[in-house]
Amino acid sequence: VASATTSLNSPGRRAQVDGLGLIGGSIGLALRRAGWHVTGHDLDPDVTERALTIGALDAAGEDELAELVVVATPAASVAGVARARLAQGPPQRAVTDVAGVKAGIVAEVGAARFVGGHPMAGSEQDGLDGADADLFAGATWVLTPTPDTDHAAFATVRSVVAQLGAEVVALPPDRHDALVAMVSHVPHLAAATLMGLAADTSEEHAVLLRLAAGGFRDMTRIAAGRPAIWPDICSENSVAILAVLDDLLARLGAMRDVIETGDRERLLALLEQARAARRNLPGQGPRPESTVELRVPIPDEPGVLAQVTTLVGELGVNIHDLEIAHSSEGRRGVLVLAVSADGCEAVRAALAAHGYRSAVLRME
Amino acid sequence: VASATTSLNSPGRRAQVDGLGLIGGSIGLALRRAGWHVTGHDLDPDVTERALTIGALDAAGEDELAELVVVATPAASVAGVARARLAQGPPQRAVTDVAGVKAGIVAEVGAARFVGGHPMAGSEQDGLDGADADLFAGATWVLTPTPDTDHAAFATVRSVVAQLGAEVVALPPDRHDALVAMVSHVPHLAAATLMGLAADTSEEHAVLLRLAAGGFRDMTRIAAGRPAIWPDICSENSVAILAVLDDLLARLGAMRDVIETGDRERLLALLEQARAARRNLPGQGPRPESTVELRVPIPDEPGVLAQVTTLVGELGVNIHDLEIAHSSEGRRGVLVLAVSADGCEAVRAALAAHGYRSAVLRME
Repeated sequence: VASATTSLNSPGRRAQVDGLGLIGGSIGLALRRAGWHVTGHDLDPDVTERALTIGALDAAGEDELAELVVVATPAASVAGVARARLAQGPPQRAVTDVAGVKAGIVAEVGAARFVGGHPMAGSEQDGLDGADADLFAGATWVLTPTPDTDHAAFATVRSVVAQLGAEVVALPPDRHDALVAMVSHVPHLAAATLMGLAADTSEEHAVLLRLAAGGFRDMTRIAAGRPAIWPDICSENSVAILAVLDDLLARLGAMRDVIETGDRERLLALLEQARAARRNLPGQGPRPESTVELRVPIPDEPGVLAQVTTLVGELGVNIHDLEIAHSSEGRRGVLVLAVSADGCEAVRAALAAHGYRSAVLRME
Repeated sequence: VASATTSLNSPGRRAQVDGLGLIGGSIGLALRRAGWHVTGHDLDPDVTERALTIGALDAAGEDELAELVVVATPAASVAGVARARLAQGPPQRAVTDVAGVKAGIVAEVGAARFVGGHPMAGSEQDGLDGADADLFAGATWVLTPTPDTDHAAFATVRSVVAQLGAEVVALPPDRHDALVAMVSHVPHLAAATLMGLAADTSEEHAVLLRLAAGGFRDMTRIAAGRPAIWPDICSENSVAILAVLDDLLARLGAMRDVIETGDRERLLALLEQARAARRNLPGQGPRPESTVELRVPIPDEPGVLAQVTTLVGELGVNIHDLEIAHSSEGRRGVLVLAVSADGCEAVRAALAAHGYRSAVLRME
């Protein structure tokens, strides 16, 4: 029914993977499934051994014939490994990496056949145990060519990334770093800060959550992620992160002054601008104008979601978004469905006929 | 199958609703469905007329016999209307309101039979057109009694709120205001600020979104909400909002210094604390330790969600959380399912048998 990804086979092509964590191991599994011969190596010999066992590698070590090398080691060692691999192998060899911050590495390698990469699916510091040939299905994978990048090397890396099921986005390295500072690094730091503030000032977490059903939970969700990867990221991308943090601090300070002085017009203008920008983010399905949110209290048990979504699907109504908000009191929840305004009443009638009450919130 | 709410009937009991916007109109509809006789009034006579037409009221005007009065007017007029209603009617009359900021109103009314209320489902400034008897099903509804509050009045209001399907949380008025500043007002302002920053500094929204699949979209979602309600909220709750904003600014500034000085240990400690707090938020279903996230690329069309959730439900595996991340390239999306680690492999096998690839992200 659904295969969002291409899966061209490449029998006999040869690749080398250095670093066999979550990303390197998954790349090995996926390349081998696509017919590649994969040689690989990890600093930890036990990990290399285990990669052979789970089928992420055909052979351990180095492959002088590999046309593609993926450097999936922690960021600090990428440039050195990449330069060594570029000095070996066939003349058309392409080398790429998977580190989350790009400008420093790309500049340090400084070679036409090196194409910086950043698969946005886990971290190179996560372990081999999570490795999965489908890890990249539907994921975004940034490549960072420069004006000096060799076209054939870029074409090779690009086609392999597409073969792994990811969607390629090409960006200059510094632009990648500025964008991830803005959309990933600083939001993570801000979410953690907001969560820390709430934790320090509220002795009653249960009440906090009850009042925080929507926005607060959305805003702090990423703060639940693994902290260990952040010191490296913040160090490697500190310039871009500090620039965005300073901008955020200045804007929050201005917002504070607007509230203290009671400048209603300025506050409204700031919120209108943000709202327009948020709504103009593409790729969110149909315009919110035509969408309504249904809130459906449900018991939190197997089969209920299937029943509700089947009722909606049978009416030919598409569910644009869906979220489950859990009650603080055990095995109940509220299902939030975004559906087209046109189909809303039919959906509510079908739900009611099966004993589900629903509330509708019109989105402006 | 599912009814998360009680629906005791109250034939013959009499209520008065002042202000017939989204909240007042919905309360009228819900009370009448539960058997109450509802009299009501809006400053706009056309709105009063329309409330009669849609069945939100039995009669227009004032009911000297009403044991319960709900003041659902905009916040600025609540105290005056509440005091007038307390001066009328039977001696045991209870009066409540629905405004989103409580301490000022409760102090201004200063009466034992006034119980401040805040249903967390839309705003009193939204219109009657969205009114719905089920608006409060599964919603949190804060009541703000004080040491002076009459016990019988509180019991009356509490039972009515439960009858409307909401879950009651009782808090002192100033504690409510501090908590909503922290979990709603400041997060909204911060989300709008972050979105405004991204909008001003990125000419390429499409790329921004591609890189921003998870955290950024979560964090800025609430910035898409209606700006018009915020000037009043920020004015009425300015003291609590400024206190939280100042705390947030100080903590973000400290975070900035930690990054500039490269203090890895302090950064890690801050992120660990936030992570622990986020994970300790109750009511999120099972502990994340036992949960994995599956990412399933799907076409964005009717019936697909039903098929996937049915496959999972048939295995007896509960979906704890579910989210749809849309691709920026049209009619595709990625379904993110949180399921128990135990059931994960069975789910993946069933999905694969129906042509769905899935990637698994273990949550630590």
